[in-house]
Amino acid sequence: MIKKLYRDVVVWDAERDSADRCDVVTEGDKILSIFPAGTLRSGCAYEGRGKTALIPGFVNAHGHAAMTLLRGLGEELPLMEWLQEKIWPVENNLDGDMVKKGTALAILEMLSTGTTCFADMYFYMDKVAEASLENGIRCGLSRGIVGDSDGSKLKENLRLARDYHGKEGLITVQLGPHAPYTVDFDLMKEIAAKAKEENLGVQLHWLETSSEWSISGQEGRMTPEEYLSETGMIDVPSLLLAHCVWVGREASSFYARENVTFAHNPKSNLKLGSGVAPLPDYLKAGVRVALGTDGAASNNRLDIWDELRCAAMIHKGTGNDPTLVTSAEALKMATVNGARALGFKDTGLIKEGYKADMILIDLDQPHYVGWDSGNLPGFLVYAGSSADVKATVVAGRVLYQNGSFTETDKDRVIAEAKAARRKLTGHE
Amino acid sequence: MIKKLYRDVVVWDAERDSADRCDVVTEGDKILSIFPAGTLRSGCAYEGRGKTALIPGFVNAHGHAAMTLLRGLGEELPLMEWLQEKIWPVENNLDGDMVKKGTALAILEMLSTGTTCFADMYFYMDKVAEASLENGIRCGLSRGIVGDSDGSKLKENLRLARDYHGKEGLITVQLGPHAPYTVDFDLMKEIAAKAKEENLGVQLHWLETSSEWSISGQEGRMTPEEYLSETGMIDVPSLLLAHCVWVGREASSFYARENVTFAHNPKSNLKLGSGVAPLPDYLKAGVRVALGTDGAASNNRLDIWDELRCAAMIHKGTGNDPTLVTSAEALKMATVNGARALGFKDTGLIKEGYKADMILIDLDQPHYVGWDSGNLPGFLVYAGSSADVKATVVAGRVLYQNGSFTETDKDRVIAEAKAARRKLTGHE
Repeated sequence: MIKKLYRDVVVWDAERDSADRCDVVTEGDKILSIFPAGTLRSGCAYEGRGKTALIPGFVNAHGHAAMTLLRGLGEELPLMEWLQEKIWPVENNLDGDMVKKGTALAILEMLSTGTTCFADMYFYMDKVAEASLENGIRCGLSRGIVGDSDGSKLKENLRLARDYHGKEGLITVQLGPHAPYTVDFDLMKEIAAKAKEENLGVQLHWLETSSEWSISGQEGRMTPEEYLSETGMIDVPSLLLAHCVWVGREASSFYARENVTFAHNPKSNLKLGSGVAPLPDYLKAGVRVALGTDGAASNNRLDIWDELRCAAMIHKGTGNDPTLVTSAEALKMATVNGARALGFKDTGLIKEGYKADMILIDLDQPHYVGWDSGNLPGFLVYAGSSADVKATVVAGRVLYQNGSFTETDKDRVIAEAKAARRKLTGHE
Repeated sequence: MIKKLYRDVVVWDAERDSADRCDVVTEGDKILSIFPAGTLRSGCAYEGRGKTALIPGFVNAHGHAAMTLLRGLGEELPLMEWLQEKIWPVENNLDGDMVKKGTALAILEMLSTGTTCFADMYFYMDKVAEASLENGIRCGLSRGIVGDSDGSKLKENLRLARDYHGKEGLITVQLGPHAPYTVDFDLMKEIAAKAKEENLGVQLHWLETSSEWSISGQEGRMTPEEYLSETGMIDVPSLLLAHCVWVGREASSFYARENVTFAHNPKSNLKLGSGVAPLPDYLKAGVRVALGTDGAASNNRLDIWDELRCAAMIHKGTGNDPTLVTSAEALKMATVNGARALGFKDTGLIKEGYKADMILIDLDQPHYVGWDSGNLPGFLVYAGSSADVKATVVAGRVLYQNGSFTETDKDRVIAEAKAARRKLTGHE
């Protein structure tokens, strides 16, 4: 297997207290060894000169990739008007080919902003899997289950798991019940049982808007936490709860479990007017939190660096406390926490034996003057941006470098997405 | 004078309802003429191919540029601990040379993120003026006046105005009383009188934190609005009030005057835990609002694109209303509103006879698929970022293009800033 040396790079991950200059060797899809910088001399694939950081790639823990085709269809509208008039009528016309083209477009955007792994809940998920494998990115996929009176969507999701779970070491599959207000109680129970039977994780939208619990008809009958217990969802192998804007402080500790992760989507929650999740309370309660962009129609950037900066900034302001949510916490959410949520046990850290999912960051820029081994997380989160990503590596393959996609024809992907959007919306 | 043609670029500014393909000709420091795309054929300086937007450069309406040298000195600390232990002791050691080096570093960051004009309130302001002229950027400068029992700082500010106001058509000078809690009432009155006498604008920190009015000792004695009236500040030729987090809804209409501008600094206000300014109320009341980054120690990016996205997003979330603060409003704040606040009457729009302060934006990227002449502001604000800036033009001069500074040696500026920071802080 091919070995590659990333020489004299500044290594940081969520388990390190300091960012130190190292020589990092990958072999095939793995990180083989890490030495102090200056140890190795030959076979250099990347010369960091002590001015390039190497950190784990970002994990986008919640999204709907193909919604890139719906980006910008109506802005600044009340939520239901936007959904009913702009999004749903168009979304209904999506076909498998469009989903594949839209997903490929999303993958380019994610790779160029440092994301090496993404969660997805949508439909035509076999097409999402194909686009991901063709582009070499890691992902955790679920078939969004809405309604489903005949059980066909759950069946489709289970078939997706059989076909793709573990595929090429890059894909995991979760079950995807959309939300308590779109899936009825008995089906939710059945999905939880299936997840346990098949040892699969679950992706679920959870308390995104303040009115959601009354929409779902559970209000008064049971609390959200009782609902998770009574459906059996709370002890599926892995439960990824997206949004969690309205869980509230008191209930937080219920969710502090090894098998549960919140996907915090701060920018989508702002843009749609859903609110600001009480993230500091969740962290204090010991809940594992990852970060997501949500779909491009409700964000509108698929850029986890933007989310982690937002996550680190907004709660300080709304909580009137500059000590809330540290830069290191935000980076941990954006990397290893997302990896764990999607069932990837050996990604998210820069560690021997781990998968080589990592990004290179150019520190030789005006806004990084002053970084050192102790303060690098602060510089990355508050001063940096995804524009600083020099290279994105997934499973040892350099997929993006110096502004170019090394294995994908960007112009083709853009042209195909434009054509798909034209077909979908009736205009460019 | 040299003419330059920007051919087939997509022109947008805050006075246009649609973004149309145009040929734009500059002559010297001005925009000479604007034709429909395809009109002109020869003398092309920039070929846009209908895939490059040309919009007014951003105006950073509040900041302390040389604080780039203090970036990252303590993060996530309570405000007073951070100021007293990390910032002030170091800031006291700044000298004129350091201020120049730190300002030059800030200018590189601002140019690369699309800012063509910045407001500055600091000290050694002649050095800030020198750095600005050397780098060709536009600015509005004020000497930060704190204490000043002997009147020397006000004198220095007036001398700055004599030496630099109007210089090379690039600089305006304002008076810079720091805040009501650092300048006493009589001096504030004197500064207001001087501003009227000399026909100068004023930059002033205003109600940044919730406790500020009690610190200033005015609480109970008079309202903030009475203070502005009684000192005479409210009718200086131009009053730029920075932050305005705690003005409140009821008082908003008082500030809706042609000579008054708020500089909204959403990210600094978040990061320092100051709060979220009620921007939608200000806009509703008809207050002119511009956008600022504040200093790099409290933000930590000097990137107005980040601020305008934040301004357009955060109020939707905290107000639970996705219709608040449109993308077009955010872009207007970031461009022409800032220009007006700093006394530049012919910048901030793409208009014949206006100064050629403008940025070129690469729309040929995955996240722009779907833009059209009607929705471009939404794509720029929600999907775009400063990484999309292909070129930054100030007064007709292309200062930044394709990742390079055309008239400045980036490596030298970074090396000099590093040396200045080392000298200032005692470590790299």
